[in-house]
Amino acid sequence: MFIGVIGGGTAGAEILRMAEETGRLIAGHGCFLICGGMGGVMESSAKGAKEAGGTTIGILPNPDRHSANPYIDIPIATSFGEGRNLIIVRTADILIAIGGEYGTLSEIAFALKTEKRVIGLHTWEIPGVIKAGTPVEAVEMAMELLGQHTI
Amino acid sequence: MFIGVIGGGTAGAEILRMAEETGRLIAGHGCFLICGGMGGVMESSAKGAKEAGGTTIGILPNPDRHSANPYIDIPIATSFGEGRNLIIVRTADILIAIGGEYGTLSEIAFALKTEKRVIGLHTWEIPGVIKAGTPVEAVEMAMELLGQHTI
Amino acid sequence: MFIGVIGGGTAGAEILRMAEETGRLIAGHGCFLICGGMGGVMESSAKGAKEAGGTTIGILPNPDRHSANPYIDIPIATSFGEGRNLIIVRTADILIAIGGEYGTLSEIAFALKTEKRVIGLHTWEIPGVIKAGTPVEAVEMAMELLGQHTI
Amino acid sequence: MFIGVIGGGTAGAEILRMAEETGRLIAGHGCFLICGGMGGVMESSAKGAKEAGGTTIGILPNPDRHSANPYIDIPIATSFGEGRNLIIVRTADILIAIGGEYGTLSEIAFALKTEKRVIGLHTWEIPGVIKAGTPVEAVEMAMELLGQHTI
Repeated sequence: MFIGVIGGGTAGAEILRMAEETGRLIAGHGCFLICGGMGGVMESSAKGAKEAGGTTIGILPNPDRHSANPYIDIPIATSFGEGRNLIIVRTADILIAIGGEYGTLSEIAFALKTEKRVIGLHTWEIPGVIKAGTPVEAVEMAMELLGQHTI
Repeated sequence: MFIGVIGGGTAGAEILRMAEETGRLIAGHGCFLICGGMGGVMESSAKGAKEAGGTTIGILPNPDRHSANPYIDIPIATSFGEGRNLIIVRTADILIAIGGEYGTLSEIAFALKTEKRVIGLHTWEIPGVIKAGTPVEAVEMAMELLGQHTI
Repeated sequence: MFIGVIGGGTAGAEILRMAEETGRLIAGHGCFLICGGMGGVMESSAKGAKEAGGTTIGILPNPDRHSANPYIDIPIATSFGEGRNLIIVRTADILIAIGGEYGTLSEIAFALKTEKRVIGLHTWEIPGVIKAGTPVEAVEMAMELLGQHTI
Repeated sequence: MFIGVIGGGTAGAEILRMAEETGRLIAGHGCFLICGGMGGVMESSAKGAKEAGGTTIGILPNPDRHSANPYIDIPIATSFGEGRNLIIVRTADILIAIGGEYGTLSEIAFALKTEKRVIGLHTWEIPGVIKAGTPVEAVEMAMELLGQHTI
């Protein structure tokens, strides 16, 4: 299963800590983590996933594969700028949004439009987003919605 | 000036009426209308603009230029699906959102992320969206924000 | 009808002269000219079209509408880099390739793949490209293939 | 290292056999194989890579990750149609073109434009393409150009 993690390229310490824990839990469940491959929530969640032995995919906005953060195993260089967000949403089986500003809202809305489920952690409260209080709760919800047994 | 009109591919009668009036007013101010080129708010706003002698541009999701609604002067066939929404936002000087669901929210959020101003008519109330009550008010606001003298 | 003109962002004087004449003839036939909106063949062909009173559309690689050359009436800002070439091919009814290097070859090949006809003026000689010797011949061929009476 | 394999969605038996062997050799050198994820040369090369224990990435034209051929480990769903070809070229360190028609030519040209090296096996003979006679020769050339010791 591919779990998308979306959130800002910059974020406060608490959001980054939650992103890292979320990444760790995703990998712990044997799922792939897919994100935007850059800094902030993208980097922290990928770091967490790598620490737990997972596989990370980064869909980059720019044409250079080497612009990915150091925790990305499979960097995909798109050169499509923000258009790369649509690829993350299309590829993920479910998305976890952590913090974030307008860019994250845009991804949440696009995910809901395409009928992908979105779990929200300290993010925009839009009708349709499933609110979670902690990374553990967010990832457990994701596993349940995907019909996976949790560990 | 290029005024983007964003809104759903299907919409109720009152929203469509507002879209048509908005299109008419945009053309009346000598501005180009740019939209997604398909049905609903896109079609009604383009119809209004054409009735007032304006020029309409439709950025289509699919590869066939002839899929545009009949009120589009310049249909652009992208084959990029929802990715075409980014082109509307990038090209418009300012956007007017009318009604709409998740797709419109995604465009609003992307516009705000890229620092384009968004005027909202009976749409999502997101921080940063400038709320207008009527098409006249929406278009007057747009003209003022663009530094244009109103007629 | 929309005639696509493709060619390099830089080119020699003779190629640029042919591009300008081609643009002038396209406009003289009442057709819209669509191109990549930047310099070289794109700029010269748009200049010719404007001199003959035509309408020009430029599909730009970058997110800024104001990066278009000064002869573009309808600049479309995509932020999709080279991906914008696909939009030119999809939107055009027929394409005229003038000079050009690898970028032009890529557009020619993509056009042929999507079953758009391509007329070539001093460009790559690929099976499927219809070779013309002069701008007059290229535009006459285009009109004939589109079933338009020539002036 | 990421080796891109490009070629037609349908192909004759000899081309498919070469694609499979090429995939097997790429994996044997410990490289990732990236391709368009669909049938023909894409499927045969991915099959060969999987048989040799490699990792395969498929950049899909459509929005459904499950449309990938069965030999793709990491399917990326883009919904960008042919625009996905640019992502393959941008992400690969070097490309091997096998057989192919206009779509392959378009990718070859785009790769050369962006200064990626292209090795050709029974494909278009365009200036800049490095011609190889066999899969072994193609993959050895790729490794040498990438500065890898061959096995």
